[in-house]
Amino acid sequence: MVSKTGIERFQMVKKRHEKTFEKAVQEKKADAQIIPLCRFLNQQPFFFTASSCSGRIVVLRLDAQETKREAAFFYKKHEKTNAKIVWNKINEKTTDILWFKQEPFILHLGTNSLENANRVLVCARKAGIKRAGIIVAKTGKFLIELIGTHGMAIPVKKNNIILVEKDFFVFLVKQANKKLEINFERLKKFEKIVKKELRNQQ
Amino acid sequence: MVSKTGIERFQMVKKRHEKTFEKAVQEKKADAQIIPLCRFLNQQPFFFTASSCSGRIVVLRLDAQETKREAAFFYKKHEKTNAKIVWNKINEKTTDILWFKQEPFILHLGTNSLENANRVLVCARKAGIKRAGIIVAKTGKFLIELIGTHGMAIPVKKNNIILVEKDFFVFLVKQANKKLEINFERLKKFEKIVKKELRNQQ
Repeated sequence: MVSKTGIERFQMVKKRHEKTFEKAVQEKKADAQIIPLCRFLNQQPFFFTASSCSGRIVVLRLDAQETKREAAFFYKKHEKTNAKIVWNKINEKTTDILWFKQEPFILHLGTNSLENANRVLVCARKAGIKRAGIIVAKTGKFLIELIGTHGMAIPVKKNNIILVEKDFFVFLVKQANKKLEINFERLKKFEKIVKKELRNQQ
Repeated sequence: MVSKTGIERFQMVKKRHEKTFEKAVQEKKADAQIIPLCRFLNQQPFFFTASSCSGRIVVLRLDAQETKREAAFFYKKHEKTNAKIVWNKINEKTTDILWFKQEPFILHLGTNSLENANRVLVCARKAGIKRAGIIVAKTGKFLIELIGTHGMAIPVKKNNIILVEKDFFVFLVKQANKKLEINFERLKKFEKIVKKELRNQQ
């Protein structure tokens, strides 16, 4: 049960996140693979989606402490990619260390109560998502984080010298594409379960 | 507040996990880096540690679907490792794909109430741990999962053919050792914060 204040806070937060999501869709900044899931959840009275990423293939420039900075993205794609394009990209002049990465999906879902947060965790388990937890638990605001498990991370360049053979790099991209595909399948499975279990949930 | 049944359930679960932990320490199966943190938490009236791993460097044999099986561990070490040893290991006859991985710590902490679970999340945030969430939320049983962020995953062998040059592999191990070190530092920071914030918490 949530207090009146809790309900008010929830509605406000939900509305704000819905606006952000619709704006991202309009500006074509939302990941295509994740739009149907987000739209469905936002249509439900007691759920919404906060930041989310469907999974991606990236080339990152990292400093010694490996802090991720938005400016450090050398390449980023939320679908299968072409080895030649990425290879050309990493051949550009660089400093520091370049990492080739395939990252799994990450979703932040919001809801109004611990009961509904637990319902999301059940859906995640049914979909085989191992990393799923409540990261914020306040009256009227519960946030659940879900993360896929399939990932790769390989240092491929240092001090402007490419460390891998082209053939091996082509193999890496092939593996990354395969893993990204499995990642998308998991996400689709979760969407299907959510549409069944969380529809019109109070 | 937890009901009498909740308290009884909590005490039972806490006792069981403490036994498992002490047995693992005796049999030298517990990761050295994590023992002081686990021991401190188990000494507190309303906390315990379930399964945990301090972070590690592994060589895994994975099938097409990349399901992890215990039998598939080719090599496993919970501290810095020597490139030559791992190189010799991957030169043994194999099938499928071998992955060289550095995995971050993963901790499961138990507590009795949502309030105490939230206290753990606050400690995690203070320590800079990004992946921290409540994965079980039942009366008298709350489980929090914490995962480090530093990791590597590289396919290094396929159909008994090594895909990487020895020099590059040595570089990978060096990077993995460095990342494992940062991972341990994060864990120590969390231990320090926990010892300050969760002592004698009701």
